[in-house]
Amino acid sequence: MTAVAASAAGAGPAPTRVDRRKARTRRALVDAARRILADGGSTDVSIQEITDTADVGFGTFYNHFDTKAELFEAAVREVLEEYGAALDEACADLTDSAEIYAVGLRMTARLATTQPAVAQVLVQVGMSYAWAEDGLAARALRDIQRGIDDGRFAITDARLGLLSTAGCVLAFLQLSLDRPGDLSDDDADTLAEMLLRMLGMTARSAAAVAHRALPALR
Amino acid sequence: MTAVAASAAGAGPAPTRVDRRKARTRRALVDAARRILADGGSTDVSIQEITDTADVGFGTFYNHFDTKAELFEAAVREVLEEYGAALDEACADLTDSAEIYAVGLRMTARLATTQPAVAQVLVQVGMSYAWAEDGLAARALRDIQRGIDDGRFAITDARLGLLSTAGCVLAFLQLSLDRPGDLSDDDADTLAEMLLRMLGMTARSAAAVAHRALPALR
Repeated sequence: MTAVAASAAGAGPAPTRVDRRKARTRRALVDAARRILADGGSTDVSIQEITDTADVGFGTFYNHFDTKAELFEAAVREVLEEYGAALDEACADLTDSAEIYAVGLRMTARLATTQPAVAQVLVQVGMSYAWAEDGLAARALRDIQRGIDDGRFAITDARLGLLSTAGCVLAFLQLSLDRPGDLSDDDADTLAEMLLRMLGMTARSAAAVAHRALPALR
Repeated sequence: MTAVAASAAGAGPAPTRVDRRKARTRRALVDAARRILADGGSTDVSIQEITDTADVGFGTFYNHFDTKAELFEAAVREVLEEYGAALDEACADLTDSAEIYAVGLRMTARLATTQPAVAQVLVQVGMSYAWAEDGLAARALRDIQRGIDDGRFAITDARLGLLSTAGCVLAFLQLSLDRPGDLSDDDADTLAEMLLRMLGMTARSAAAVAHRALPALR
């Protein structure tokens, strides 16, 4: 954590003591938000509770964030960035671009079970996040483009592939959260199969790819 | 309008004068909200402005709705119900269940251009509306089930078809609203083609169905 705080402190030359203290406070706030998320807690906590958890003064919050939502969004972006990196690592030995896309989708659709609080905020930030040029959206776009380049996917416009992928995943996560038990892991895999067809694979190829054993995360 | 107000007043026997007045006031409020939506106005108006537009007392608002959002949701449900009925009418001469589904999708994806305020509230109510058992969602589910029964669609779980359809349409509408000009009518038709493949049509059949001439609305 100290290494992260230190690296967060300085891109420019010679950060001052004030810079370092500011970075540490921001780090503590984001870490507190991440702990709240990871504990499955609701984001419906007071700023006082957050600054208490972070062990910083109440007033310092507004030096870093305008709203609680902004803090949680920063925390979620960080969590999703790390989740995306873990996905990349899990897929490192895979060579089929269609499978890499499908694994990402199947694991992300499972977030409502595996990391419900993260799924919740992902649904809240929704398409605006999906269209952002970092994190999971950038990875999905990269995987779709790779599938097109490899001739695995027949669509010509990767943007529409991303739009559909994000729309379906967000819908799946929202309904998984709203109606626990309605959607299963098998449904997540069936959704992947449907999306592979949507991207232009034949029914036979899509079925073959979407139900392979999932690699381990981390 | 008087006919609607009268019919809204009474399902039970012999509505009283108070019943009728209450129904008229509710009708006036919903109509005011619909006018605001139809004029392309933002839903970011005060309750005072709404009651002024409806020509009813400010205080009466809370006899009918707890929040402004609730009023606009009622107005949008009504608009979407009518829109759905108009769609059904436009498709009355069509016999191919896949085409009926595709026409609904292509027209709904165009709402950001044709009825932006409606598209906006549709995006706001989002998946919770999509999962409701009335209006557009019920129609989409009916069309998907009909396609399955006719052997046009190969999926076995109509729910996942609805989920994907709603997710993609909402994503398309949100991005159309957020980034005007990014998505075209052709993109809406391409999305329909992709969704037809997702539902299990071959690439050739999906392409043939998704770009036919659209019937006229009303």
